[in-house]
Amino acid sequence: MSGLRTDLYELRMAASYLRHGMTGPATFSLFSRRLPSRRGFLVAAGLAEALTFLEDFSLDAADLDYLRRVGGFDRSTLAALSTLRFTGDVWAVPEGRVVFADEPLLEVTAPIAEAQLVETGVLNLITFQTTIASKAARCRIAAGDAQLIDFAFRRTHGFEAGAGVARASAIAGFAATSDVEAAVRYGLTPSGTMAHSYVEAFPDERSAFRAFATDFPVDPIFLVDTYDTPDGVRAAVDVVEELGLTGPFGVRLDSGDLAALARQTRAILDEAGLGRARIVASGSLDEDVIAGLVAAGAPIDGYGVGTKMGVSYDAPSLDSAYKLVSIGDRPVLKLSPGKATLPGPKQVFRDATGVACDVIGLRDEPVPADREPLLVPVMCDGRRLDTCAPADLVRAARRRFEAELTWLPGSARRLAQPQPLTVLVSPALAALRDRVAAEARQDGGR
Amino acid sequence: MSGLRTDLYELRMAASYLRHGMTGPATFSLFSRRLPSRRGFLVAAGLAEALTFLEDFSLDAADLDYLRRVGGFDRSTLAALSTLRFTGDVWAVPEGRVVFADEPLLEVTAPIAEAQLVETGVLNLITFQTTIASKAARCRIAAGDAQLIDFAFRRTHGFEAGAGVARASAIAGFAATSDVEAAVRYGLTPSGTMAHSYVEAFPDERSAFRAFATDFPVDPIFLVDTYDTPDGVRAAVDVVEELGLTGPFGVRLDSGDLAALARQTRAILDEAGLGRARIVASGSLDEDVIAGLVAAGAPIDGYGVGTKMGVSYDAPSLDSAYKLVSIGDRPVLKLSPGKATLPGPKQVFRDATGVACDVIGLRDEPVPADREPLLVPVMCDGRRLDTCAPADLVRAARRRFEAELTWLPGSARRLAQPQPLTVLVSPALAALRDRVAAEARQDGGR
Repeated sequence: MSGLRTDLYELRMAASYLRHGMTGPATFSLFSRRLPSRRGFLVAAGLAEALTFLEDFSLDAADLDYLRRVGGFDRSTLAALSTLRFTGDVWAVPEGRVVFADEPLLEVTAPIAEAQLVETGVLNLITFQTTIASKAARCRIAAGDAQLIDFAFRRTHGFEAGAGVARASAIAGFAATSDVEAAVRYGLTPSGTMAHSYVEAFPDERSAFRAFATDFPVDPIFLVDTYDTPDGVRAAVDVVEELGLTGPFGVRLDSGDLAALARQTRAILDEAGLGRARIVASGSLDEDVIAGLVAAGAPIDGYGVGTKMGVSYDAPSLDSAYKLVSIGDRPVLKLSPGKATLPGPKQVFRDATGVACDVIGLRDEPVPADREPLLVPVMCDGRRLDTCAPADLVRAARRRFEAELTWLPGSARRLAQPQPLTVLVSPALAALRDRVAAEARQDGGR
Repeated sequence: MSGLRTDLYELRMAASYLRHGMTGPATFSLFSRRLPSRRGFLVAAGLAEALTFLEDFSLDAADLDYLRRVGGFDRSTLAALSTLRFTGDVWAVPEGRVVFADEPLLEVTAPIAEAQLVETGVLNLITFQTTIASKAARCRIAAGDAQLIDFAFRRTHGFEAGAGVARASAIAGFAATSDVEAAVRYGLTPSGTMAHSYVEAFPDERSAFRAFATDFPVDPIFLVDTYDTPDGVRAAVDVVEELGLTGPFGVRLDSGDLAALARQTRAILDEAGLGRARIVASGSLDEDVIAGLVAAGAPIDGYGVGTKMGVSYDAPSLDSAYKLVSIGDRPVLKLSPGKATLPGPKQVFRDATGVACDVIGLRDEPVPADREPLLVPVMCDGRRLDTCAPADLVRAARRRFEAELTWLPGSARRLAQPQPLTVLVSPALAALRDRVAAEARQDGGR
């Protein structure tokens, strides 16, 4: 992977650190300054991809040649960059766990040039997948026992984003994805039915259903709304009976009043003795629409959720930051209005009963009784500690999120006006912050 | 590129078409059903990437092996898929041109299995870049004569999305990008200053500025808000004078009341006789904030625009669709509520004076007098017609967008409550739609 996958300023700062002999370790902390208004919690995701990025980070001859042409990089700096790899340590919140504002998702400790160079990449990958997992988690909560399928690939921000969305939504409990390449990569269940174009490509709906069920007799899903939904359901019933299909099958509703159509559809299916047939709904769904359908008692067994989840439509990014918190032994912060930071490497202490607030403290504080530390070591000397296959990492993250769902307080979990858990700062961290801030105000502008 | 970068249903439908001997040509039309509420126009983008995807489309042995395991793909279908390439024709609106709802951005004509298989990829790439270019265009309009720099890479939806954002924003008139790899790929100007962490890594602000300006004396930009902005500006002035820098330089404001700070900053710089120094602003900027700063007369020379543009925060996707409009000689449509389509291959006829409405007609209609057809042939028999280098394609698209800016009616161009141009349907297309709809209502549910 090209080391040019970064912002130019990271390369300039790294070059400057190297030229000035600043090779001591620095710690950077990645966190979200606040949650979007309709988020009661975030689901940590993207860590595995970030660790891969760190392990692969390097600049090749073409990269260095480009930098020489951009200017400002002298021969010895380019030589230093040519052998630079990420050799640092990383602590992080495991994927699938729930976090709140200001809580570090990840902390990097490395020679400052290395830690600086990887800022853009690490921020990008963690912010993106955490954004999507947090949106998908709301869909998961809304859907209750119904299955969720990721239908987002056609409108994600590029192909790689499609794979990231499939991965992040799987962590948040989606059962399948339409994105075949993502299914291969992450061991997910691929899912696919038919499009309106398929129905239209045949002389009539019935011919289309007949052809499809002949070709894919194992659990076919018939798209029934191309012309008239009840007629479409009856056509599906006729074809199932005509072909003597006895296994599972389903119909998909993709437009109109989904609650009313689902009831009508259920009645037609049940009348035909096809209680086994499932109803899948799709079409501009998000957690609010799903919650409305569930509340209305719509007999829907599965939801295909696309764009609204895949770009996290109501909050497509997070106010995430990757901030220097210590250099050598010196804790640092910045005082910029609205963007002040907490100094020093940190830990988050959580009450496993869900009753008490989270506490952000210093990493070397003793863990308070009855509390659990959220951040764990994930990389040491540039090597990841968990070398499981991508599919196993997703499965483990999904199990963690399932456990979090039982822990998450109702006020943070609810869809409307959610209230994130309060996060406190430990006395030791507060004292350090006040001391460092006072020193910075005195000395910063010298 | 893997042919599995598609939705599973595309592969199933393609397999079914092949098994049923449906090898005749079909035409699919890609358009946006409506514009987001705060968009008066869309900027077509992503075509070059989509054509690359079409040229590269193929399934390799590992892909086919996966499909065999997924099930439903028999030996002869897999054999047919193994040699399948995209051999079709494509018409499209050139990148950088402005379009409105319902106007085709692209039309694909190919054997139906091929045209179906590429749906997901083409929709994804065109929707994404058009979404971003349309948001970036609003920033461009807001900024007037000031320069815009893409700072989005750290919060785009993955690395590839970062490159796509750099490309799309360049088409919409951004002058530079922080994303180095995107700059290499698309021949863009890379841009980068310093971060707060750099300032904090030194004992004080002045030492940091001195080190940076020593290492990068050509047009350095000093980030001045880490502790106190006016103090930071004075430190930058002192360092410039101390080092005897006589060339261009600048300061960057990243927090606080940007208008007030820019005025204070300008005064300090001018008092020091540094009228040549530029002021760059950044920090959660979007077109509204920029327009506010411009309206307030803030003396800002450049804007670094990040997340809000890079994910198109207020409208992170489009209601785009890729719909079958004809199969063989038979025009088709769908009647789904709210998602009805127009049949047949199309053309958009535009009044170059900007006075009259656009007209969507049939592709084979004669071009009305004084009107220009928007869609042009871009691919023939699976080969792109324009084989320019990526950088040249971006430059050409940017020139087109600059011309569109002079054409665009003020009501569509304004930032608040923009009013898209009205789009009419030609009499010939309307007659076809009514005829085909009537037939579909009669025959569809057979």
